[in-house]
Amino acid sequence: MGLERLFEAKSVAVVGASATPLKIGHTLLTNLIEGGFQGRLYPINPKETEILGHRAYPSLSAVPDDIDLVVIAVPAAVVPAVVEEAVNKKAGAAIIVSGGFREAGNAEGERQLVQTARAGGLRVVGPNCQGLAYLPNHLCATWPVQKLEGSIAVVSQSGTVAAALADWATEDGLGISCMLALGNKTDVAETEAIDFLAGDGRTKVIAVYSEGLGDGRKFMDTLQRATAKVPVVLLRGGRTPIGHQAAQTHTKSLAGQYEVFASLAEAAGATVVDSLEGLYDAAKAHAGIPPAAGNRVAIITSSGGSGVLATDAGVEVGLELAHLSDATTAALREKLPPRCSVRNPIDLTGDGTTEQYAEVIRTAAADPGVDAFLAIFGDPIPGAAAAIAKLQREYTKPIVVCFLGGGEVEAQERRAFAEARIPVFSSPERAMRGLGLVAAGRRN
Amino acid sequence: MGLERLFEAKSVAVVGASATPLKIGHTLLTNLIEGGFQGRLYPINPKETEILGHRAYPSLSAVPDDIDLVVIAVPAAVVPAVVEEAVNKKAGAAIIVSGGFREAGNAEGERQLVQTARAGGLRVVGPNCQGLAYLPNHLCATWPVQKLEGSIAVVSQSGTVAAALADWATEDGLGISCMLALGNKTDVAETEAIDFLAGDGRTKVIAVYSEGLGDGRKFMDTLQRATAKVPVVLLRGGRTPIGHQAAQTHTKSLAGQYEVFASLAEAAGATVVDSLEGLYDAAKAHAGIPPAAGNRVAIITSSGGSGVLATDAGVEVGLELAHLSDATTAALREKLPPRCSVRNPIDLTGDGTTEQYAEVIRTAAADPGVDAFLAIFGDPIPGAAAAIAKLQREYTKPIVVCFLGGGEVEAQERRAFAEARIPVFSSPERAMRGLGLVAAGRRN
Repeated sequence: MGLERLFEAKSVAVVGASATPLKIGHTLLTNLIEGGFQGRLYPINPKETEILGHRAYPSLSAVPDDIDLVVIAVPAAVVPAVVEEAVNKKAGAAIIVSGGFREAGNAEGERQLVQTARAGGLRVVGPNCQGLAYLPNHLCATWPVQKLEGSIAVVSQSGTVAAALADWATEDGLGISCMLALGNKTDVAETEAIDFLAGDGRTKVIAVYSEGLGDGRKFMDTLQRATAKVPVVLLRGGRTPIGHQAAQTHTKSLAGQYEVFASLAEAAGATVVDSLEGLYDAAKAHAGIPPAAGNRVAIITSSGGSGVLATDAGVEVGLELAHLSDATTAALREKLPPRCSVRNPIDLTGDGTTEQYAEVIRTAAADPGVDAFLAIFGDPIPGAAAAIAKLQREYTKPIVVCFLGGGEVEAQERRAFAEARIPVFSSPERAMRGLGLVAAGRRN
Repeated sequence: MGLERLFEAKSVAVVGASATPLKIGHTLLTNLIEGGFQGRLYPINPKETEILGHRAYPSLSAVPDDIDLVVIAVPAAVVPAVVEEAVNKKAGAAIIVSGGFREAGNAEGERQLVQTARAGGLRVVGPNCQGLAYLPNHLCATWPVQKLEGSIAVVSQSGTVAAALADWATEDGLGISCMLALGNKTDVAETEAIDFLAGDGRTKVIAVYSEGLGDGRKFMDTLQRATAKVPVVLLRGGRTPIGHQAAQTHTKSLAGQYEVFASLAEAAGATVVDSLEGLYDAAKAHAGIPPAAGNRVAIITSSGGSGVLATDAGVEVGLELAHLSDATTAALREKLPPRCSVRNPIDLTGDGTTEQYAEVIRTAAADPGVDAFLAIFGDPIPGAAAAIAKLQREYTKPIVVCFLGGGEVEAQERRAFAEARIPVFSSPERAMRGLGLVAAGRRN
């Protein structure tokens, strides 16, 4: 049994659906509705006849049609009976949001539950999980509501980590294809999810947070298969022995051998990162920056210092400062005021205008020695987002943007960049590391 | 001649002050006024009799009183004459904002200028610089306007880097004591500024960005003196040979020997970082987190995954997970719902309330095995800022906050934390690295 009836569910029942705001069964149904689910929705609650405009049923078996996916948010003691009912109803998958199983010392309850499910061909996400949003199917069986479809798939053992990544992607205007929180992952684990998402035609990068990856060989095989199609970025929780203990994993994971794990994963084609922001930045880079043909970057900046910092960071990730041709240099010298430096990093100084950024990009885009651009705005310039977005449509060479500092003007421009889906990084170093991931021909 | 008449100027003249908005001479005068400068202000402009409510004078010599500081924003060709006038007027210092000197190939002009100044006892900041804000004196001879006084001093060769750090500090509610942009630093360089700020009684941490530090021995001596009083954090631009070339420094700096430089600086007591965010985070930690007596941290989280990531990062910077006493554990078990894990990291799960966070901190603050707290909020909780601020007033053990994700509710809570001057970090790793800097007894 694959995961099609999970991700591509056409009918969803919410067991524990509630008419009371703030209850989890209310939130789940609300988000399914607000997320724009186009299939059939069945609230299951013996005390209600209708919830949020949808006819409610007393039990799964009372539903007159077939059900692909059952979302379960009832107390742990009731879950086994619901799972059995789901099996009898021939549902394809269940998301068990409810906690109270292995993580609470009830390993036996969890074992029995998965046994029932497996015997009946029911795939299980969780228990003790934050559910699934799969945007190509407008399916939002999780919280907070996910509505901005993009190409980043998040697969995470931790629900809040998944939600944080999805939040950041939404704020940056990139959106997500998937947010899957695996919780106790008693049945569905990273491997199958990665396999499905790598082949769905909608996902451009898979960001994985995991505290223990089960069968190491199987995981590496999955990575190898998946990374042939899309990039996979990995953050492993419990890298240190004490962190591992904090993760309390009881799987046959590669515990205490983090370096070995990381090398194997890199060898299998994945990018391994060591922080939550590193995970997000890498996903953002793969989803938001067009691929570069090579590693030679032209930096355009209104801040000389940031140009230097970007150069350092670029060198450290295997990028090179593009050597501009004599023709390019002469053209820039002619077009830019004398105060500007036309050597790379091209320094427009604090008075740099949107038109000058555009002029430099237009001129240098024709230079075969340039593979990509980093545009650093020391201060926000009104109209920058529109100008850069237009240029990115005209040229295939990627343009990455870095904004320094803060303030309300910057927040506005940042939103404009987000609407144009041009990734903005908040430091020169993070921008260059992002570019480093999508640039071919890196030295390391 | 020290830098007292620069930082503690009682009278300031702005040469090139303009009545025309957006002109730099208008911005500088506006910011001096809006910054709340309490001394005398003299706009110098031969075409005006009054600018922004202040009587204008045709020249420095026409000003009837003495002048401590002359801010110069006129074309490069006119600067030498102004410097000579400032010397004749017996001014104490000049900030030369104007560019067009060494950075534009006019090294000779710069040499002559500094010669005139030195002969006349006039200290010079710049040329080609973004000026100085010194908040204890309500002196804002720079842009953007700096009004929130705090204890972070920023000393930077690059104006936009200085401004970015000041922006972040203001957004976080921490504020700055100083923002000094040195530009070409033909006279005043990092060393003297660091010496002054380390002893001013208002600065708690000095953040330095530099692309070349001149006499290495003198610099290390300065660091040693300064770090005996306040922490100094260093970001060196041009760490890589190509980055160094981009920095185009022509000083006797420790070029190409970055590792040597970094070890010497660390030996002299400084913290050396390798990114702009690293520089800011370290300054934020020293300015915003009370010192911890030891390295044993209790983590309270609503996100299990983030607790694991924080543990990993903490171990990596020499922190330890606090071992809670049996009494503490028993008290927590009694006070918290069964779903919560009372082992450190203490996991309140997604339903954690403000009251539970407070309960845990109150209980564990009495445990002699706990030196500091990290409170991770997976989702923002209304009232969290007020509760944490109250607890931080009650207990000396530092409480560091991490917020995941984004959204409008979080932005509101973040502002509330900023108003309470409780530092908030946007990832578990950055929070733990910040705490690592202020915790005594770290292993490395």
